[in-house]
Amino acid sequence: MKSLDRLIRALRRLPGVGPRQAERFAAYFLRASQGETEEFIHALVTVKQDVKLCPVCFAYSEGGLCPICSDPDRDHGLICVVEDPQDIEALEKTEAYKGLYHVLHGAISPLEGRSAEQVKVRELLARVHNSEDPVREVIIATDPDSEGETTALYLADLLRGLVGQVTRIGYGVPLGGDIDYMDELTLGYSLKGRTKL
Amino acid sequence: MKSLDRLIRALRRLPGVGPRQAERFAAYFLRASQGETEEFIHALVTVKQDVKLCPVCFAYSEGGLCPICSDPDRDHGLICVVEDPQDIEALEKTEAYKGLYHVLHGAISPLEGRSAEQVKVRELLARVHNSEDPVREVIIATDPDSEGETTALYLADLLRGLVGQVTRIGYGVPLGGDIDYMDELTLGYSLKGRTKL
Repeated sequence: MKSLDRLIRALRRLPGVGPRQAERFAAYFLRASQGETEEFIHALVTVKQDVKLCPVCFAYSEGGLCPICSDPDRDHGLICVVEDPQDIEALEKTEAYKGLYHVLHGAISPLEGRSAEQVKVRELLARVHNSEDPVREVIIATDPDSEGETTALYLADLLRGLVGQVTRIGYGVPLGGDIDYMDELTLGYSLKGRTKL
Repeated sequence: MKSLDRLIRALRRLPGVGPRQAERFAAYFLRASQGETEEFIHALVTVKQDVKLCPVCFAYSEGGLCPICSDPDRDHGLICVVEDPQDIEALEKTEAYKGLYHVLHGAISPLEGRSAEQVKVRELLARVHNSEDPVREVIIATDPDSEGETTALYLADLLRGLVGQVTRIGYGVPLGGDIDYMDELTLGYSLKGRTKL
């Protein structure tokens, strides 16, 4: 059926969704009541209308500065660089960070053809350059995978000299992890980064 | 942000989607172009308008009998009972079956409060009863889990006497499976169901 195939194709564009899951999602929508479907479409349309990006940090915002950038109690001399807007929520939950953020919207990936121009790198440099408060530190919190690492090294090169210091989030064994399931690279970093008890 | 939360809540209703995946899906829609979003909504609305259930077997159909039920070359004396419409596609791919199907739209589940009245059991009985071609065999291909088993036993009781014979799909080790990772129940069945070489 053409219309069903088209919906399945559209659902497959969702991140990480394979053919079977897309079929299952389509089956959900086929079973869903007219009211549920309308509610879903309404939520989608509203989000596309209402949710914009903060012009400073590129986090989600309902127009104008986001709540973090406009909060005078946050430390405006500290910027944490992340790949995706969702990363902010994860970091905020730690309650260990009181600075600002900068969302790149991706990582530099030569393999996927994503260059520095396609993520918000230029915007970060302009921001650091034009900041009213001098930026004491930029913490690079891109993902600890090859793309995130590439991006971190690239940014560090660009930012050195422009800001007080550039740091990278610490590597090590995650809490609740199992030492004997850990890869040797992580374990190596956890040894190098050991702290005194 | 309220509108973002509402979309995430709507996405969490998709089968098997947890909070993190729903956030990632919402982020996809936020990044998507207006054109992509409209295409998605269009596909969804069209599916809800166009895709109906076949009045005989309850598979998806674009109105009227589905292609399988209306195919005179299929064996109309053979009915394979499945839980979900997607199961048909999987079975068709085997090219080992030339009969008709009957979609229950779920399995009987006392735990989830799903009784025989909430799946298409009555419709199956009526269909078998009123069939022009006498039904020689009903193959029960519900999932090999506790709900699927319950449903299979329940249907077998109801159908015995009404049809030539009631059968259940074979249990055993799946191809490409690993014997030492297999549970003992499956292995037991694979021994009982062994075939001569």
